[in-house]
Amino acid sequence: MAAMKLVAVRPVIKTVSFHSGLQKSPFRRNYVRAFSAIMSPPSKAVVYDQLGAPDKLTRIVEIPPAEIKDNDVCVKMLAAPINPSDINRIEGVYPVRPVPPAIGGYEGVGEVYAVGSGVKGLSPGDWVIPSPPSFGTWQSYIVKEQSVWHKINKDTPMEYAATVTVNPLSAFRMLHDFVQLNSGDAIVQNGATSIVGQCIIQLARSQGVRSINIIRDRAGADEVKDKLKKLGADEVFTESQLEVKKVKDLLGTLPEPALGLNCVGGNSATLILKFLRNEGTMVTYGGMSKKPVTVSTSSFIFKDLSLRGFWLQKWMSMDKATECRTMIDRLLGLMRDGKIKYDMELVPFEDFHNALDKALGKQGSQPKQVLTF
Amino acid sequence: MAAMKLVAVRPVIKTVSFHSGLQKSPFRRNYVRAFSAIMSPPSKAVVYDQLGAPDKLTRIVEIPPAEIKDNDVCVKMLAAPINPSDINRIEGVYPVRPVPPAIGGYEGVGEVYAVGSGVKGLSPGDWVIPSPPSFGTWQSYIVKEQSVWHKINKDTPMEYAATVTVNPLSAFRMLHDFVQLNSGDAIVQNGATSIVGQCIIQLARSQGVRSINIIRDRAGADEVKDKLKKLGADEVFTESQLEVKKVKDLLGTLPEPALGLNCVGGNSATLILKFLRNEGTMVTYGGMSKKPVTVSTSSFIFKDLSLRGFWLQKWMSMDKATECRTMIDRLLGLMRDGKIKYDMELVPFEDFHNALDKALGKQGSQPKQVLTF
Repeated sequence: MAAMKLVAVRPVIKTVSFHSGLQKSPFRRNYVRAFSAIMSPPSKAVVYDQLGAPDKLTRIVEIPPAEIKDNDVCVKMLAAPINPSDINRIEGVYPVRPVPPAIGGYEGVGEVYAVGSGVKGLSPGDWVIPSPPSFGTWQSYIVKEQSVWHKINKDTPMEYAATVTVNPLSAFRMLHDFVQLNSGDAIVQNGATSIVGQCIIQLARSQGVRSINIIRDRAGADEVKDKLKKLGADEVFTESQLEVKKVKDLLGTLPEPALGLNCVGGNSATLILKFLRNEGTMVTYGGMSKKPVTVSTSSFIFKDLSLRGFWLQKWMSMDKATECRTMIDRLLGLMRDGKIKYDMELVPFEDFHNALDKALGKQGSQPKQVLTF
Repeated sequence: MAAMKLVAVRPVIKTVSFHSGLQKSPFRRNYVRAFSAIMSPPSKAVVYDQLGAPDKLTRIVEIPPAEIKDNDVCVKMLAAPINPSDINRIEGVYPVRPVPPAIGGYEGVGEVYAVGSGVKGLSPGDWVIPSPPSFGTWQSYIVKEQSVWHKINKDTPMEYAATVTVNPLSAFRMLHDFVQLNSGDAIVQNGATSIVGQCIIQLARSQGVRSINIIRDRAGADEVKDKLKKLGADEVFTESQLEVKKVKDLLGTLPEPALGLNCVGGNSATLILKFLRNEGTMVTYGGMSKKPVTVSTSSFIFKDLSLRGFWLQKWMSMDKATECRTMIDRLLGLMRDGKIKYDMELVPFEDFHNALDKALGKQGSQPKQVLTF
């Protein structure tokens, strides 16, 4: 555990801090504080000055100490993942994103390093996550107002705490927000090897819901199937296995699924629609194939399917902070119990660009990259 | 008004009646009744013996008298339309349809000709519609149990009474069942020249809802636009007018629509999706282009659109008989007040095949064909 250290500087010559989102100020101010201020240690951060290719535009920079105000908490980051949406934000193709120059990252876990005089309920050494997540987790020290931080159980494996929000919480919400699923019901999903996909399998299993899983055709498909079945998948099909007249003939004793979860689009989404029972719902939360969803008229009229979308960032903006934290704690509990598992690779922060290349798919399929500080 | 005539026959040699759906019986029965029976007049009906091309397979046949039991009502049909779904049923492409040999037609209006001894609330001379609609309205006399029939106001124009259920009721339901529309809100629809489309324009206007209407490019588009605007359309665009970067720039002072109604599919459905506001809903109730609906991933995730379907026949099967009749009465009132209007051509029943050819589109765009008896 890093030691708490309060740095008192009097007077302080302070430049505009990089810590709170790197907003461009119309006038850069230098000013002199006449009283003492508590400052964070200097931080290292992954910064980008304009939108575009993340591997070209990101760089690790050193950021000067930031003031810790009365209600602020200074957190020494422990771990933060590289999620696809982080990449999309830097690329500028994600609709909600910070204005560059900005620091990358959106979720992570850290240890409280120092607190302002007005902070209650958080002490140095506590583990916290930003909840709801907030921009700029790819840096070694973050100073933010106390309400941003949610204290978590320190027995949680660090890399799971760092990644609990974006993927597992999405999986959890999608299993609860669209269709009332009862024990014995079934769901169908594509992109089943993604972290969301793996979480869906495990969360479904934990509530007695059966899962039908669709994966891309690939070398080693049999091993992938075995792995997903060990997590609790009831059935796993490659897309080519589903090139049959009636996919429902493959259901065996499984019920027709009431809920479909689509993160691929194109033919893979069509396969989900074929599996769904009458009045079923397909929720789209990603488009990995970059192909749209195509739906027959009769699917709407005679099969009465509903097609919806899910976006965690929007969900969390809907005044869900308390509900969000309750669910996070529940998910962290499942993680501590080993009931939610997925593959991650821990990478020292200094090797960010190597991790980024892996996250960008330059080295083929790789586990989730999690930066450690 | 046709005179009531009770025909008593003793004893009756009765063959299996054609009147109640032409179900194939595994054994054709002839039997002798030992008591008198009230019989309907002989009927003429449009019959088909197998599924396929309606113009080749339908024929007008004479059907022997049917027994009017205690709770039965014999109705002399006055008028019945040829709807696209009637054609689809004969073609065998409609999922719910009678088993041939069957009589065509699904809605219509008739006059009570005779009632069984146990019938209450219906008397010869009353006008009735089958509600919910039922198969076999293309015949001159129908004998069915009294609960099938809904007595209506005889001041209603006959051709509107004959067509009130399938199209106007669909329009009404779709404006009420998916999105809470308030005065000043807007909707967008394609296929705006269809009868459902025209009803939507007029029903929306009657509740203060603005309508944005999309029509096919065609000769005489300007006259069509004028006609729809006279019905109450706020904006009418041809598809090619909407080949612009941002269709919403064409909205002027109209609000972004919360509800879209799609009976075309393909590009025309995509145009609806472009018009819809965030969190809007598109309801598909037809597929005139025979092309599917194609939706981008971001429409689901970031725009949070919902895509649904509507099928009147399913809606009515959901124990909605009372609600259905209340709405029918309301729609008939609007029709009597001239607040719902659309073009129809009345065709004598004997000219069925000519009307069918028009309904099949063999003579280009034609008004709704309504058979009169």
